[in-house]
Formats: sequence, C-alpha cells, structure tokens
Amino acid sequence: MKVEVMSDILKANDLLANEIRELLRANGVTSFNIMGSPGSGKTSILERLIPMLPKEIKPAVIEGDIATTNDAERIAKTGVFATQINTRGACHLDAAMVKAAIQKIELDKINLLFIENVGNLVCPSGFDIGENKRIVVSSISEGDDKPIKYPVMFKGVSLVILNKIDLMELSDFDEENFTKGLKKINPGATVLKVSAKTGEGFEELVRWVKENIAS
Amino acid sequence: MKVEVMSDILKANDLLANEIRELLRANGVTSFNIMGSPGSGKTSILERLIPMLPKEIKPAVIEGDIATTNDAERIAKTGVFATQINTRGACHLDAAMVKAAIQKIELDKINLLFIENVGNLVCPSGFDIGENKRIVVSSISEGDDKPIKYPVMFKGVSLVILNKIDLMELSDFDEENFTKGLKKINPGATVLKVSAKTGEGFEELVRWVKENIAS
Repeated sequence: MKVEVMSDILKANDLLANEIRELLRANGVTSFNIMGSPGSGKTSILERLIPMLPKEIKPAVIEGDIATTNDAERIAKTGVFATQINTRGACHLDAAMVKAAIQKIELDKINLLFIENVGNLVCPSGFDIGENKRIVVSSISEGDDKPIKYPVMFKGVSLVILNKIDLMELSDFDEENFTKGLKKINPGATVLKVSAKTGEGFEELVRWVKENIAS
Repeated sequence: MKVEVMSDILKANDLLANEIRELLRANGVTSFNIMGSPGSGKTSILERLIPMLPKEIKPAVIEGDIATTNDAERIAKTGVFATQINTRGACHLDAAMVKAAIQKIELDKINLLFIENVGNLVCPSGFDIGENKRIVVSSISEGDDKPIKYPVMFKGVSLVILNKIDLMELSDFDEENFTKGLKKINPGATVLKVSAKTGEGFEELVRWVKENIAS
C-alpha cells in the first residue's frame, strides 16, 4: 500500500509537469532544470551565463532552495526576473511548486526559463518539473567519482557542466576517470568544462543554450 | 492518511535506531554519523584520521552510498574493517540498513563505529541511525552559505568539519559569514578546520574523537 501512495504522488506530479511543459511550449518558452550538489556552482554559472546570452534570448529564473532567498537575489542583480521557491525541508522541487512559481512570470516576455533545483545529487532526479532538458553541474572539487556514485542523476541529463576547472591543476581530479564513469552511465551526454570564476568555457555554454532552445 | 504512513515509517525507524544504540552501548561502542554533500571529503577525512587514532581506539566503518563499493574499498586500505551499504536510490541511510550492516561487524573487537552517510545535505538529517553524535563535513569549495541554506542538517550536529581549508586563499569563501550563519542555526556546534589533503587540523580532530567516545 505504501508503494501505491508513492506512485499516486508521482503520477500527480507527472500530470502537472506535462501541463507546465504544454503551457511553456504554447508561450514559446524552453525550460532547463539545473541540478547538482550543494556548492557545485549552479547559481554562479547562471550569474555569469545570463549577461553573455545574445539579446534574442530572454530568460527568467526560478530558484529552488530549502531556505533563504539568497540565490534569487543574486540572480536578480543580473537584471532578469528571478523568483524563489523555498521547499521548507524537501530535497527537490516538484511540479506543483514550479507551477505556482510560473504564475509570477510574464511568459510572453521570455523565451527561456532556467529552473535551479535544490542542491542535491539524488532527490531532484526523481521529479519531472516540466523541463525540456536536464542539466547537472558537477565540480572538480567534488571528485571524479560522482557519475558512478550518483548514476540516476547523471543518467537523465542532456548536459553535464564540469565546473571549477580552474582548480584542476591543484586537485587530484582524474578527468579520464570522470569521463569513463559518465560514458558508462550516459554515453550521449554533452560535457562542457567551465570555470564560473574565470569565465573559461562559457562561450561553448552560450552556444549550447542557443542550440537547445526551441526556435 | 499519507502523513500517517510517513509517520509510521519514521516511528519504525526510531525504534530500530534505539535498538542499535542500545546494542552498541552494551558493547562499549560509540558511533558517529558522518554527513555532508557529495565530494565534501567525508571518505578522505576518514582515510587520514583512522591511521592517526591512538591504539586504544579501535574503529570500524560503515559506508553508505547509492551505488558502488568504492568508499569501503578505500577505507579497507587503512587496515580497519569496512562494510558498504548500497541504498539503491535512497538519498540517506536508515536504521534498518545500518542494523543489517552491523551484523557483519565483530562488535567486541571495536569501540568506535564511523557511519558515513550518503552524500546529501538534506535527507540524512531526517533519519536517526542509532548514532551517538552527528558530524557534518562542509568544504570551502561549497561556499560559505551552506549552514543557512541547509539549516536542518547543520542544526542537528555536534561537530562541523570545515574541510579543504587549503583552498581558502584561492576561493572567495567568507569564513565570518559561514560562522555567523552557523551560530544562528546551531550556536553550540564545534567547528574544526581541516584539510584532508595536507593534514592540517587533524590533531584537533583526533582530540575531538578521543573526547567524544564513551570511556
């Protein structure tokens, strides 16, 4: 019976997620669900990426956190609309939370929605939030074993952003091991190496965004 | 009704956790539940700490991961007994998993049990696994905002190990901000700054372990 309850929750979530996807599609908005460990650099990447996007790309951001509005405030400084969801303990966003947050966004003024999930390499992967693509941010300082240790997360993403490559020289991160693990889990994923600190790799990230928004 | 089901699960877990605590106490074993983000350095800290412990401290290690036995293999190289729990998707250990793992440990040969939880700043905090003390590992590279963004995790711990302090100079980590946030959430927590890479701070960590195992 416990399983049935869980399955009902997930079914309700999937229905809402499809509603969100349809609403965004009808408004010409592509959405990316950005996931990753706490401190992997999700917000820092958005802070650097957003000002680099060409004018025809008009983003808004939904920030998901257990507590605080710090991240939405950081994003708002880039000049785009940002709204914060506080999950009050939950380790992931769900479709109901995202649907509520979308009400606050003027969808006719944007064509790209970044949804930054709660910092977590596990829970967010179980919940469709109406996104078109999933992105995971993994950082050099977390170590090269993350794809094989968190396979469900890495399996479901289109793009892996490997952040903090400015720390590569200083660390014992084995890039070959990371890539080997990822290939086993998700051979089709694109990998982009960046440093949100120095800006390295962001031109490729801008290109990826341009290629992956619905035209 | 959904809430009742969840509450039943938690009640069952708490009963088991108390059983574990009693079993360990009867055998003179103290247990620490070590939590933290993926890649914060939980295993690296144990790898460096265990060989530094005085002879009268006899540890064993339970490793919790979603997948792989990598961490238990790393720990086994230090010469102590290590066993791996794979949670198959779950974002935290629970008391039933730990109880099963404890069956494999010769409790009369140890007096300290390290239980390394799944890399996650959210889920593990909700589950008592029969530990005597909770420890969270947070690292410089994760940023100084983690206590206020993951308050439930930081609230429940006796010790915060701030790892990767070798990266302090290179990063924009604001130690004062970290401490201020932590004081708000958990003013009584001890903070120890270490680098599992260079070994800095480990003498203080050994001292903390000695002071916190039941004599």
